Amino acid sequence: MEPIDKNLFGKDLICTQDWAFEDLLKVLDLAEEMKANRFEHPYSNSLRNRTFFMFFYNPSVRTRQSFECAATELGGHAQFLEPKAMRLKTATTAGETIEDAAKVMSRYAVGIGIRILEDKISAYGEGDALLKEYAYWADIPIVNMADDKFHPCQGLADIMGLRRNLGKDLRKKRLLMVWGHGALARSWCSVQENLLISSRFGMDVTLAYPEGYDLDPEVIEAVRENCRKNNADFSTIHDPYEGYQDADVVYCRNWMSPQAYRNGEFDKQGEIEKALKYPEWICDAQKMKLTRGGKGLFIHPMPVDRGHEVTDEVASGPNSIIYEVAENRLHVQKAIMALTMGIRQK
Amino acid sequence: MEPIDKNLFGKDLICTQDWAFEDLLKVLDLAEEMKANRFEHPYSNSLRNRTFFMFFYNPSVRTRQSFECAATELGGHAQFLEPKAMRLKTATTAGETIEDAAKVMSRYAVGIGIRILEDKISAYGEGDALLKEYAYWADIPIVNMADDKFHPCQGLADIMGLRRNLGKDLRKKRLLMVWGHGALARSWCSVQENLLISSRFGMDVTLAYPEGYDLDPEVIEAVRENCRKNNADFSTIHDPYEGYQDADVVYCRNWMSPQAYRNGEFDKQGEIEKALKYPEWICDAQKMKLTRGGKGLFIHPMPVDRGHEVTDEVASGPNSIIYEVAENRLHVQKAIMALTMGIRQK
Amino acid sequence: MEPIDKNLFGKDLICTQDWAFEDLLKVLDLAEEMKANRFEHPYSNSLRNRTFFMFFYNPSVRTRQSFECAATELGGHAQFLEPKAMRLKTATTAGETIEDAAKVMSRYAVGIGIRILEDKISAYGEGDALLKEYAYWADIPIVNMADDKFHPCQGLADIMGLRRNLGKDLRKKRLLMVWGHGALARSWCSVQENLLISSRFGMDVTLAYPEGYDLDPEVIEAVRENCRKNNADFSTIHDPYEGYQDADVVYCRNWMSPQAYRNGEFDKQGEIEKALKYPEWICDAQKMKLTRGGKGLFIHPMPVDRGHEVTDEVASGPNSIIYEVAENRLHVQKAIMALTMGIRQK
Repeated sequence: MEPIDKNLFGKDLICTQDWAFEDLLKVLDLAEEMKANRFEHPYSNSLRNRTFFMFFYNPSVRTRQSFECAATELGGHAQFLEPKAMRLKTATTAGETIEDAAKVMSRYAVGIGIRILEDKISAYGEGDALLKEYAYWADIPIVNMADDKFHPCQGLADIMGLRRNLGKDLRKKRLLMVWGHGALARSWCSVQENLLISSRFGMDVTLAYPEGYDLDPEVIEAVRENCRKNNADFSTIHDPYEGYQDADVVYCRNWMSPQAYRNGEFDKQGEIEKALKYPEWICDAQKMKLTRGGKGLFIHPMPVDRGHEVTDEVASGPNSIIYEVAENRLHVQKAIMALTMGIRQK
Repeated sequence: MEPIDKNLFGKDLICTQDWAFEDLLKVLDLAEEMKANRFEHPYSNSLRNRTFFMFFYNPSVRTRQSFECAATELGGHAQFLEPKAMRLKTATTAGETIEDAAKVMSRYAVGIGIRILEDKISAYGEGDALLKEYAYWADIPIVNMADDKFHPCQGLADIMGLRRNLGKDLRKKRLLMVWGHGALARSWCSVQENLLISSRFGMDVTLAYPEGYDLDPEVIEAVRENCRKNNADFSTIHDPYEGYQDADVVYCRNWMSPQAYRNGEFDKQGEIEKALKYPEWICDAQKMKLTRGGKGLFIHPMPVDRGHEVTDEVASGPNSIIYEVAENRLHVQKAIMALTMGIRQK
Repeated sequence: MEPIDKNLFGKDLICTQDWAFEDLLKVLDLAEEMKANRFEHPYSNSLRNRTFFMFFYNPSVRTRQSFECAATELGGHAQFLEPKAMRLKTATTAGETIEDAAKVMSRYAVGIGIRILEDKISAYGEGDALLKEYAYWADIPIVNMADDKFHPCQGLADIMGLRRNLGKDLRKKRLLMVWGHGALARSWCSVQENLLISSRFGMDVTLAYPEGYDLDPEVIEAVRENCRKNNADFSTIHDPYEGYQDADVVYCRNWMSPQAYRNGEFDKQGEIEKALKYPEWICDAQKMKLTRGGKGLFIHPMPVDRGHEVTDEVASGPNSIIYEVAENRLHVQKAIMALTMGIRQK
């Protein structure tokens, strides 16, 4: 049984920042091939009769649909598991250790996807740390299906969409990552991952948000460093209009504030109330006219909170690539699974 | 990639009444072929590595089992999804629109099945309308897995069973559709679908129920019109015995009254109490003796409420075809999926 | 369509004690073959496009993972079903009978696995009786995925592990089955099944537990009889140290007392409190030094309650075969499914 890619076989994917640039290109190139030849690609059965475990600490539709489809399209099967059904040991209850759970799962499956977000943890970073603990004990790849810090599959899907629409070389293309008001108190994972991977690909980055909505300073420092290495611009502003000027891409999305955790609890309601006080932070057609040639792309990881983050006119308009990017999730995930878990079939 | 049936490929199935008679025959003929050659039919891999989404607003066992088996037997995979895990927009909460959900799902899967019944809506017809909204936005077929009005897969399974047992030509065969007392306050979907498709196939129809248990008048008008076109009889009676006379088929099933919704709520308990007041509305051996030659078939979409709707003696008797019809669900659903979603494999 | 094994095709597996010794060897031999040749064995597609239903009255991770993987690795699909979604008839509610449910499922699938434990029943034995009722009505094999009395797949996985590590002939090897203190109030199924199958294979058996923790007297009588037929020793002691002397295998596991049911309810909390009063009933390195050559194997069906049943030092030590045995679940279940449900593929 020969792996498809000897170097990537068995490799975890917690954040794109952990992977070499060349390896990200491998994923994107294979994803393009698989998009062009969805069911008859040479690797279309590279997971034949094999199992990928999906662990949903948080429920999800898009992520579940796209991962389960991805495994199916590679001839394998994704098992939908909810850890609440697992009798895992916690600080206060008897149960199984992650060591034991991960070691046994490594005997059954070829990979494990894990999703854990804000409301299942007591402080920022705990979700990502849990993934790393699974990765430490498991002998098979851990794929981050979105944690409180990162969302690598979304980031790769974003870049695949941008390269299709702006050309493969994204250097000096300008990204506006802008906070959107809204009623969902959203995670930092998608926006942080996008900032990291966009800056790896040499884009100029403008990050815009109201005072008080800082993201993780360590992540922002890494983004700044990525830009520096690529001689690209990076700037932070607190104005809802200015960043649109000459942007090639607008990514408008709500995210929670760093004050979201209080006394070890995620204060979703408080975050929503606070966020709804900034109605001018919406992406609308008026602002989009300021983008490069008035034709800047609109991108979003979905689900879109229409009317809050963005108007219908923009989200369903001709320069919105939201459905294409959502579809890309399938293709990049197939490519990741094939490269890290797949076997060449005779 | 060549579709199995170019005309039916991509076609929604919300109600059999929407389909041409010839297309219903195509389904039934293919279902018979697939029953005869369950795992080695030329279309046995026509969904190879492909995904069918099953959306269960209401849980179900029979429907889930038979659809998930159907996809598996065609080489594909049916994903079990519960929309409560979807952050869908409603009148009062932020979330994703059906437009967005349906458009993305169209990128991942080859078809979507939806099931939604009385207790998930606030007025009769809303479930069927929801299916039509999905069908409007989706680029892939929507299959009705039972809504508040119709249940096309059950109707086709019924007819497949009748044609096996009574001969392919059902014209002038007599159907008694009779209300049964019981403790389950059942949907109108199965009985309305059966009335529609039985009358398409030229059967004489007697509809019997206690005063106050009228079905949807628009549906009944369509049944009457189907009968008229086929020169068949249609009559409505309110007597629990009379309709058995010379019936070839007895379909005895509980259904709720048109008063089931009050102030936008489904009053299940009230319906059950009311229905239990009609113990004479049970299908028993005594009544079945009145059927044609005393050998009328007993048919029911299951689960059977034994002791209320029908006696054990009849349900498990020699003229009951309930298990055969339940099995037919699998075969007709495989045929529907192959014809509307399937690809010829080399 | 030719079955893989004409004699075993269609056979239920409720307890290993019901099967001929030669048939248990068939399972173990095929499981070894499948372990050696996991994805390219001649029977690797013997469930191609076929469905195995998994009925979880109780949730489970290990059992679900290993059965769903097993079906996938044989080219089939295991459907995860929770009977709470089934409208089954009970003593007090209307619904479907087991007769009807089992007969219809027999039309859709090639086998049914059922798991039902203490907390879903009102008295010991009811779970096992429910499996036998399904087996009575179903035309396809029922596989016990753990009930309140037996756990045949675990027992076979245990023996597969012992034969790998101690040699195929287990006669006169000494097993210590010892109660462990703990906070999980565990079922009798795994330990009773292990006692039964270990004694079938000719092992000497020492059963050790605190006064008041008797297992099912009928099962113990069957174990005693198995030992007698094999000229092997069987003894019961109530000392937490003595049984380790010269043991080849130590199986240390918590189990509930026969007083667990009071007034038709499973008193889990009471059982946990009682069990925690016996801290000397833990398997530790000190005791393991008493085993044969100080190298007795540690075995456990997992999940392990570390710190209660066994110390980390032993559970993760060089003579622990817990992960190997957990992996064996997959292989023996594939073998069972292939032999009782599988078809030779051309």
